[in-house]
Amino acid sequence: MSMLRLSITMSLDGYVAGPDQSEQNPLGVGGMELHDWVFPLKAFREMHGGQGGEVNASSAVVEERRANIGATIMGRNMFGGGPGPWGESPWEGWWGDEPPYHHPVFVLTHHPRDPLELKGGTSFYFVTDGIASALARAREAAAGADIWLAGGASVVNQYLAGGLVDEIDVSIAPVILADGAHLFDRLEHGALKLQQVRAVDAPGVTHIKYRVG
Amino acid sequence: MSMLRLSITMSLDGYVAGPDQSEQNPLGVGGMELHDWVFPLKAFREMHGGQGGEVNASSAVVEERRANIGATIMGRNMFGGGPGPWGESPWEGWWGDEPPYHHPVFVLTHHPRDPLELKGGTSFYFVTDGIASALARAREAAAGADIWLAGGASVVNQYLAGGLVDEIDVSIAPVILADGAHLFDRLEHGALKLQQVRAVDAPGVTHIKYRVG
Repeated sequence: MSMLRLSITMSLDGYVAGPDQSEQNPLGVGGMELHDWVFPLKAFREMHGGQGGEVNASSAVVEERRANIGATIMGRNMFGGGPGPWGESPWEGWWGDEPPYHHPVFVLTHHPRDPLELKGGTSFYFVTDGIASALARAREAAAGADIWLAGGASVVNQYLAGGLVDEIDVSIAPVILADGAHLFDRLEHGALKLQQVRAVDAPGVTHIKYRVG
Repeated sequence: MSMLRLSITMSLDGYVAGPDQSEQNPLGVGGMELHDWVFPLKAFREMHGGQGGEVNASSAVVEERRANIGATIMGRNMFGGGPGPWGESPWEGWWGDEPPYHHPVFVLTHHPRDPLELKGGTSFYFVTDGIASALARAREAAAGADIWLAGGASVVNQYLAGGLVDEIDVSIAPVILADGAHLFDRLEHGALKLQQVRAVDAPGVTHIKYRVG
């Protein structure tokens, strides 16, 4: 069966976003620093329609994370938007008119909304009936390929607590955020059995992959 | 000047000990799992008077952490003992009659006690006037060599919050403890600037070293 694969960047003290997340500052105070390692990469720039950039030890990790992914699951804040309803003229999220996914993306939200088809093969589907439903729909859409669990912390923690994640690939950034959205909350001792698969020492970041189960 | 070097093992969710620490279970529920990577090592066994054991990617890390250390600082629970006063017949801690330190160890406590000299060059000094005093005494005792900040979480977090730690070498164990003694608490955003020095992919653990400053 296709795997649900979490890949996410976390501060050394366990945060995936800083405090005071808003539409102006979706990653919260200091949250952008988490991703300093990825912005210079050629693999990242190409994904976002740019050119040039570096190739280093992170490049293969970024490519590995995108390989064999057929669908993505994310929370509403990661799609782009606050806690309220969508409003009269709902916007199209953070990701521009040609998002870097190129496959179906399932957005967990409490507010129904029609699907949003954008350029390059990315369609956002808004799921209001919970994480199991989103996973079932993503699995069907992925048609045998794996599913990327992309964030944020609240959605990820729900999937982890439900024992639904098969693989965790966490990039540990050399940053102390001290506040914000914390990964691995709401778990119980022994809820997850982890087996370390590999760690990669890259410029300004360490990538550690675990098998869960 | 000699460096204050933190080396410690942490769960993926940030704990250095489990909940319900006691004299019977000093690492708390599940806390022993954090150290599964170290027990099989030849370097560890020799340190504790044993023989045999494995040599793997962790071995050089363990040796590096002990190199050029002239004194150690730890909290009272790590020395061995609960929160109360020492009592009429204070015991000699967790570490046996020949502790693996072989240098002066400064134990932070609220309860005065005479120094304790044990075999093999380890002397425990009990410091009641705070972390700066313990550091000054350790620095003098180390005579130019570095100082190992060994734990537990409470003492380490105080030194980190005080900006007194020069290097952090953290071993990330593939364990979710979900509760217990959490590292990197009580910090403020931007209190620590970290620079990743190296990461080591070892069997069942990843060691990441940071320079602070």
